[in-house]
Amino acid sequence: MQDCKVVLQDNEIPRQWYNIQADMPTPLSPPLNPGTGEPINPEDLGAVFPMNLVEQEMAQERWIDIPEPVLEKLLLWRPSPLQRARNLEKALGTPAKIYYKNEGVSPAGSHKPNSAIAQAYYNKEFGIKRLTTETGAGQWGSALSFATQQFGLELKVYMVRVSFEQKPFRKLMMQTWGAECVPSPTMDTNAGRAVLAEYPDTPGSLGIAISEAIEDAVTSENTRYSLGSVLNFVCLHQTVIGLEAQKQMEKIQLYPDVVVGCVGGGSNFAGLALPYVRDKIHGREVRIVAAEPTACPTLTRGPYAYDFGDLAKTTPLLPMNTLGHDFIPAPLHAGGLRYHGMSPIISRLSQDHLIEATALNQLDSYAAGMLWARTEGFIPAPETNHAIAAAIQEAERAREEGREKVILLGWSGHGLMDLKGYEAYLNDELTNYEYPQEMIEKSLQALKDYPKL
Amino acid sequence: MQDCKVVLQDNEIPRQWYNIQADMPTPLSPPLNPGTGEPINPEDLGAVFPMNLVEQEMAQERWIDIPEPVLEKLLLWRPSPLQRARNLEKALGTPAKIYYKNEGVSPAGSHKPNSAIAQAYYNKEFGIKRLTTETGAGQWGSALSFATQQFGLELKVYMVRVSFEQKPFRKLMMQTWGAECVPSPTMDTNAGRAVLAEYPDTPGSLGIAISEAIEDAVTSENTRYSLGSVLNFVCLHQTVIGLEAQKQMEKIQLYPDVVVGCVGGGSNFAGLALPYVRDKIHGREVRIVAAEPTACPTLTRGPYAYDFGDLAKTTPLLPMNTLGHDFIPAPLHAGGLRYHGMSPIISRLSQDHLIEATALNQLDSYAAGMLWARTEGFIPAPETNHAIAAAIQEAERAREEGREKVILLGWSGHGLMDLKGYEAYLNDELTNYEYPQEMIEKSLQALKDYPKL
Repeated sequence: MQDCKVVLQDNEIPRQWYNIQADMPTPLSPPLNPGTGEPINPEDLGAVFPMNLVEQEMAQERWIDIPEPVLEKLLLWRPSPLQRARNLEKALGTPAKIYYKNEGVSPAGSHKPNSAIAQAYYNKEFGIKRLTTETGAGQWGSALSFATQQFGLELKVYMVRVSFEQKPFRKLMMQTWGAECVPSPTMDTNAGRAVLAEYPDTPGSLGIAISEAIEDAVTSENTRYSLGSVLNFVCLHQTVIGLEAQKQMEKIQLYPDVVVGCVGGGSNFAGLALPYVRDKIHGREVRIVAAEPTACPTLTRGPYAYDFGDLAKTTPLLPMNTLGHDFIPAPLHAGGLRYHGMSPIISRLSQDHLIEATALNQLDSYAAGMLWARTEGFIPAPETNHAIAAAIQEAERAREEGREKVILLGWSGHGLMDLKGYEAYLNDELTNYEYPQEMIEKSLQALKDYPKL
Repeated sequence: MQDCKVVLQDNEIPRQWYNIQADMPTPLSPPLNPGTGEPINPEDLGAVFPMNLVEQEMAQERWIDIPEPVLEKLLLWRPSPLQRARNLEKALGTPAKIYYKNEGVSPAGSHKPNSAIAQAYYNKEFGIKRLTTETGAGQWGSALSFATQQFGLELKVYMVRVSFEQKPFRKLMMQTWGAECVPSPTMDTNAGRAVLAEYPDTPGSLGIAISEAIEDAVTSENTRYSLGSVLNFVCLHQTVIGLEAQKQMEKIQLYPDVVVGCVGGGSNFAGLALPYVRDKIHGREVRIVAAEPTACPTLTRGPYAYDFGDLAKTTPLLPMNTLGHDFIPAPLHAGGLRYHGMSPIISRLSQDHLIEATALNQLDSYAAGMLWARTEGFIPAPETNHAIAAAIQEAERAREEGREKVILLGWSGHGLMDLKGYEAYLNDELTNYEYPQEMIEKSLQALKDYPKL
């Protein structure tokens, strides 16, 4: 019998997060106050996030202890299994060994709870009683609903109206976990009322939902805002993924030649990749590949510049790869990859050639996801399909080269709540979205008034 | 840090199924030919099931080797974790330790693939190219779609029309795994055409869908029918659950005082319970509790008698607890527990007082499932909620008695495809269904012409 999985016992869970800021060859440029062009004052962020998380955002220590109460909650589903995709290897006829880190085993079905649990804990520790957040496709909203329930916090999720209507099951997950989930824009905030006054039938957008959630947080008592990607502390919390994977691969005495993950805001990719980037900085030979959609090619085609994190320009200016804060990506099923910007950490590592990026189109991604479902069984999330498509490209190259390459794939979540995309694919109703050169030029133009990097 | 889970490595997966027929104090009464009243001839079943499975149905050996290709497929997700429900214990204030065997980690999200994989394999081995089956809520149809895809068989699933329309996501799972899923009744079979001629707007029923699937199997080339519960070989395939649980509890040097599982046709409950029934037959003190819905109280209130397995009387007469083959259970959300009969093995063990049964109503079950989701995180299937409700009763009794009881719970599947029930519960739209005494008398009356047990 051939082994398929490497599982860790509870007591093998990592006790510390890995903070790559301690090892980056080029330090991160600071977030800037858009008014003054000066580095932002940590206290300015204190109205939005609790100070313990603001401090974590700036932390420079290499290893940060995972608090015991966070560990206890992570153990509800972690350590997650490392599995070998033997059936897929066979179907591809590749000599490559494909291992995947299965983050679909969490209660919410993705990697998102890794940071949701930590954020709920730190807010609770800081005396916060209530969180607000926005959600598009619903992965983050449901993960944070689960996490706030675990720590007894209230939560209000502003869900983009069109998704709220199209994806009623995500809303039901949030409600089952005790959160309030409302279609954004709402009449509950100034930002929402302003949009509704002008466009009563608006489908909503992530930009509007962020503005509503932040306004609610800064104007309500004992309330803070929570964000599921992009920020340094979110990437930090996700490093349990890669740290576990390293332990697991060590047990079978393997080291990956290539590490592949899908990338939207950056937290899933960071979680798997950063511990390997550390090895690479220390001389280890390993390729680290971020898979993004051609419809939103932030790393492969977006300039590296200071830009806002949201449409309404409520965030500080962040140093990142960006397609422009007013860019509205095409209606990809992989909603989690529809973000105009990119985590500053991932952007900086890309500048320094420690990671590489590749763009996959929607049809190739679904073809890859379908092949996965029909070989490995688990139905992947549409976001995950992009990483699978990139891993398949690597495996096919290995076949051509006749190399027994080891590929490590970040399987960020299952697609059981996203089956509509598979239906559209099976019915030949999906299309690819390309990103025209004019748009790059437009976004460069839009960025010209902001400080340069 | 407290341990939450006991996980097994791949090489600890059980290599044999446990066949309780070798140990039952009272042997099973044979299935009867309804025409002659004589025990059925194995060959008569050969048109419906492949002969290797028919032989397994009658097998008397205590241990049956799990074929290597079946093991390989089970390893895609097995061994499943044994987890401790510490948060629930805390919420209940009970000294009891509650462990649960998490079968929700399979690709289809329930225990059903344990037998689906085995059945697909044996059919393939026997030279069968195509399977048919019926499905109500869709758990079995999706599990068998996954399994037939793994072994390269075709599959047609007759899905009860009303569920087909209400649960489009289950259909999409089946299609993603390459199966054909049609709303029953169809115009493709005599049985279906006859119903549609008389009732063109019928919502369909499990009885009709079974008749269509069997007719298709016996009239098509290289085709057999597959059933997801009730039969001896299905219970056999599920024993991996209990065998793993025993290994896992041994590792933490515990033995359960009570084993609890939900019971519909019987395969989930059998899977967890039978290895413990074996211990009990050999003198071990353990209570083994089947949790069924008050709306379909087969074990707690149905007579033990010969009856048909389906409405259309196409099956042999089976010796079992039954509410009458023409009984249509109330529209419970726990569709997998809406079966008029009960596995002959479970029925016989109930007669011999080796297992006990308890009936739970819908509202208490959802309250239990909701408490679970808000403490342990994972959202349970509505069927599983019945087992949780029964386990909570045991834990509360332990609190009253001040006993540190060990409870082992069969967590048969997740509820991510069944969130509508939670919505109805949250909106106070659910009701309980009781089963009136007149109906018992009616079913006894209907059974009076069949052979006695």
